[in-house]
Amino acid sequence: MTDLMIRRATEEDLPAIVAMLADDTLGATRESPDDLTPYRTAFARIDGDPHQHLVVAERAGRTVGTLQLTLVPGLSRKGSIRTIIEAVRIHADERGSGLGTQLIEWAIDHSRDLGADLVQLTSDATRTDAHRFYERLGFVRSHYGFKLPI
Amino acid sequence: MTDLMIRRATEEDLPAIVAMLADDTLGATRESPDDLTPYRTAFARIDGDPHQHLVVAERAGRTVGTLQLTLVPGLSRKGSIRTIIEAVRIHADERGSGLGTQLIEWAIDHSRDLGADLVQLTSDATRTDAHRFYERLGFVRSHYGFKLPI
Repeated sequence: MTDLMIRRATEEDLPAIVAMLADDTLGATRESPDDLTPYRTAFARIDGDPHQHLVVAERAGRTVGTLQLTLVPGLSRKGSIRTIIEAVRIHADERGSGLGTQLIEWAIDHSRDLGADLVQLTSDATRTDAHRFYERLGFVRSHYGFKLPI
Repeated sequence: MTDLMIRRATEEDLPAIVAMLADDTLGATRESPDDLTPYRTAFARIDGDPHQHLVVAERAGRTVGTLQLTLVPGLSRKGSIRTIIEAVRIHADERGSGLGTQLIEWAIDHSRDLGADLVQLTSDATRTDAHRFYERLGFVRSHYGFKLPI
């Protein structure tokens, strides 16, 4: 395997990121990779917010993974800063390659650099492989995640 | 009951907010209400971030509830904006008064005003009363929440 680079996403990465969001059991019904317009608007919002860190993993010039890290300052736990990992996707060709681990480890290291004390994420209850993956990396499944579409 | 006002928190609310964070089964072991210094630092971080909405509920001049709403722009779900509710606390004297419902309904309405499509939160697996409460309000317990202290 050639070297992996994890770097800030640019607008040029959008087609590859959206393709990965859509190439997923749950994402397939929720995304519209043929029309990037809403994603371009959303990218501008993310890119303009200093607390959002949207990254891609690139190998041999191909975009093979992505995640978004959000910094959330809070009062609880003596004023802790926490980060939230969202939208983790690994290209189908790279699943099982250890890239997921490298991306999450990047997110943990970057969270430390940002002054965070806690990294958190939610995972759909049906993604049992993902749950084992996060537990192997030291995450504790202590919470339930609730969602309300509005 | 006199009228309730939900408003943006100010630094003057910190002693009351921190007392509520500490007056909690889990919070009791994690907070230091006798030393507000770390909370003042954290409040400045929250107050300076336009995507954080830290509010208090006030009744008859007393601070009786709090929550923090965070806006997170994302790419997934066609570039949806989501909000995350954290640090919901109700003063012991007000539990069972419907204040929790009013606070969460405020958060939902405010999320809509901010352009969000989805409201999400996590709740510790031991807080079974809270889970029923969120489900009554329409939230779906579809996810597991994972945390990693760093």
